[in-house]
Amino acid sequence: MERMNIAILGCGVVGSGVAKILLEMKDELSDRAGRKIELKKIVDLRAASAISKYDIPKALFCGEGRDLTKEETVKYINEVIVSDDIDLIVETIGGTSDFVFNIFADTIKAKKPIITANKAMLAERGKAIFESAENSGVIMGYEASVCGAIPIIKAVRESFTGDKIVSMYGIMNGTCNYILSKMQDEGFAFEQALKQAQKNGYAEADPTLDISGYDAGHKLVILLKLAYGIDIDFKKLSIIGIDKINRDDIDFANEMECAIKLISFAEKKDDRIYAGVRPMMVKRSNFLSEVDGATNAVEVVNKYSGKHFLVGAGAGSLETASAIVSDIIFIARHAKTMKNNYGNSNNELLDPSELNFPYNIIFETEDVPGITGLITTAIGNQDINIDTVGHNRHNKEKAVFAISTMPCSIRQIENAVKEIRSKRANVIIHDPKVIPILF
Amino acid sequence: MERMNIAILGCGVVGSGVAKILLEMKDELSDRAGRKIELKKIVDLRAASAISKYDIPKALFCGEGRDLTKEETVKYINEVIVSDDIDLIVETIGGTSDFVFNIFADTIKAKKPIITANKAMLAERGKAIFESAENSGVIMGYEASVCGAIPIIKAVRESFTGDKIVSMYGIMNGTCNYILSKMQDEGFAFEQALKQAQKNGYAEADPTLDISGYDAGHKLVILLKLAYGIDIDFKKLSIIGIDKINRDDIDFANEMECAIKLISFAEKKDDRIYAGVRPMMVKRSNFLSEVDGATNAVEVVNKYSGKHFLVGAGAGSLETASAIVSDIIFIARHAKTMKNNYGNSNNELLDPSELNFPYNIIFETEDVPGITGLITTAIGNQDINIDTVGHNRHNKEKAVFAISTMPCSIRQIENAVKEIRSKRANVIIHDPKVIPILF
Repeated sequence: MERMNIAILGCGVVGSGVAKILLEMKDELSDRAGRKIELKKIVDLRAASAISKYDIPKALFCGEGRDLTKEETVKYINEVIVSDDIDLIVETIGGTSDFVFNIFADTIKAKKPIITANKAMLAERGKAIFESAENSGVIMGYEASVCGAIPIIKAVRESFTGDKIVSMYGIMNGTCNYILSKMQDEGFAFEQALKQAQKNGYAEADPTLDISGYDAGHKLVILLKLAYGIDIDFKKLSIIGIDKINRDDIDFANEMECAIKLISFAEKKDDRIYAGVRPMMVKRSNFLSEVDGATNAVEVVNKYSGKHFLVGAGAGSLETASAIVSDIIFIARHAKTMKNNYGNSNNELLDPSELNFPYNIIFETEDVPGITGLITTAIGNQDINIDTVGHNRHNKEKAVFAISTMPCSIRQIENAVKEIRSKRANVIIHDPKVIPILF
Repeated sequence: MERMNIAILGCGVVGSGVAKILLEMKDELSDRAGRKIELKKIVDLRAASAISKYDIPKALFCGEGRDLTKEETVKYINEVIVSDDIDLIVETIGGTSDFVFNIFADTIKAKKPIITANKAMLAERGKAIFESAENSGVIMGYEASVCGAIPIIKAVRESFTGDKIVSMYGIMNGTCNYILSKMQDEGFAFEQALKQAQKNGYAEADPTLDISGYDAGHKLVILLKLAYGIDIDFKKLSIIGIDKINRDDIDFANEMECAIKLISFAEKKDDRIYAGVRPMMVKRSNFLSEVDGATNAVEVVNKYSGKHFLVGAGAGSLETASAIVSDIIFIARHAKTMKNNYGNSNNELLDPSELNFPYNIIFETEDVPGITGLITTAIGNQDINIDTVGHNRHNKEKAVFAISTMPCSIRQIENAVKEIRSKRANVIIHDPKVIPILF
């Protein structure tokens, strides 16, 4: 049986999970792959936690399990990448540093397959990596980079191939979904929910990457490349996070039989792709509204086969690791026939604001008579059909109420707000919050 | 570009959908596959409906689109299978006849890949087919045979490979789910719901295969082979259909915040597999309870990556066809590296009655005092913990009420019923209906 010797670079939460599965399922994995799958080397600055957590033999670590200096780490990584004893590299360090970028570059140069869960790297610097992999005939596995355990990468790359993907709407960040679920189901304020998420290990000490929507955006960029063959400058992706979502928004969502979810989405119309990340009010009749806590979910609508949902664990040590191991098996089986991407297109990426949605507009205004008439008239003047006017929470300081519309553009709404302000300058206290409604 | 010329045998609901997609997406499919995908020949007794439905060129049909005699059909099929101009056969005739079995045998003999949606054939006569394919090195595609458009076959075969499948619970028959949804959501009686399903094209004139649970069983057998490597004698699979489900059952389910669903399930405990098909009361907190109408869904629980749901269209012309075309692409890409099955095991299949479930037991008894005490005492005597006693619908003729239990075995329940009958011979009017509860 041909060998497939594996090295893991970075043995933190995910890397240690990969080591555990490779050790526990060694024989079974080799049977499945038709190649002898063997974990040969692990490189990590600090091996101790992985060793204690999953009982991984010290002998597998470069340096036999002791803490390494940075220089040693670099030296070992360089050795492992070019070692004749290693056939495949698992990169589970993460981040977009040059240091990690060079691991990709060097592995590609060594003509070895590389498997990663590093969504930030693939989204922000993936173009250069994929191009150089392509030129060198090097296969990459990145199932674990999007929605953890959900097999969405292989679904798009190998299963939805007899079809055309019309749209994708997904809950792709477990931290945000945990926070929003706590706010929706348990009446938490945003800050309180965030603290709970940090306490329970669902959010980092610095939660910016998650709550800003950037992490959800990273995953979307990878899916867009795969589904539509477009390379996106990550900085140009339109992203709104959840940091501005407050109790009023949640209450209005409940009133409208919706749950607020952070949605990464893409829609194809003719040859144009509209894509972005937005908090949305998801109707209770849509499956995505039922996806709570740290779970992820993706709705894919295909031209011929219609609507699909894939739901599963979006993060976690063994959950993400199992996706990495599935890539090891896929590459062990199909390295000779598989490609990193099949899509190639001249699709253009457009701002999602160009896409018509039904919107929920939450106004904070002075609490005086005549406001509802003024606002609804201005909205009507922009040819926007109003669906419902949400219950007005008013006191003497301000009125807060929501108007949900039939599908319209952001531009129409902006024009309506302009008209309101031109009629009564200070009536609107803050810029209204405009949240798309997802049916 | 290497060619991949395709013939479709049987151009009914599914076959005509395959033809449509192959014609509409010809260039795109060839790009994706890296081979020139071309539909070359179609054989069908009566071509007219496919031609008119999807505007498929007559020239593609053997006999140029006119009706064929049975002898002509056989002759054309035999010609196509061995033709040098055909590289891959799509079998969309269906059924378990020798005639169709021989199409498999002859295609394998001709060493050509064969793709099918024929769950009955694979479940009932698959062992011989897979063995002969294996011996001849012939690749088969059968994504479309289980849950239509849901990519469950590739998920199990290519995506959940870094993990161990602990259990699978699925709604695998759209007809049954449509009928049960109508009963649950619109108060229909079984017969009324069945008629509606027939009227709307969701059920055949003879609905036996669906409502008996056999079709759901066929799909389960295919998944069992794939996930656990076991060959099952279909006749030995324990199957209960939905034909005995009545309004009372539905009402008790509603009372318990459940929906009744026909569930195909498998659970692995140690090296034993428990599997069967049962109507179950699915708790509203379980996603499967929300899957309504003709939609299918599968919950897969993996050892490392936890719970997954895959939801999508379980049937339909283009929906099922898109799964077949995805197999064409997969085979065009990976024929040299893929296998029909990777699993091989000595797992033993056991009767699902051996598995402990919480159960809902619906009693129809005489309407006299003392019954509840008699029955609950007998149940307690068998060491079964009672969870709740459902509301008693009684009149002078009979009493109907339900008892839901904590997890126990069917044997325990049978013993309790025996005890009740031994104490008061005619108190139970019918054998009680025992329905597993799924959380």
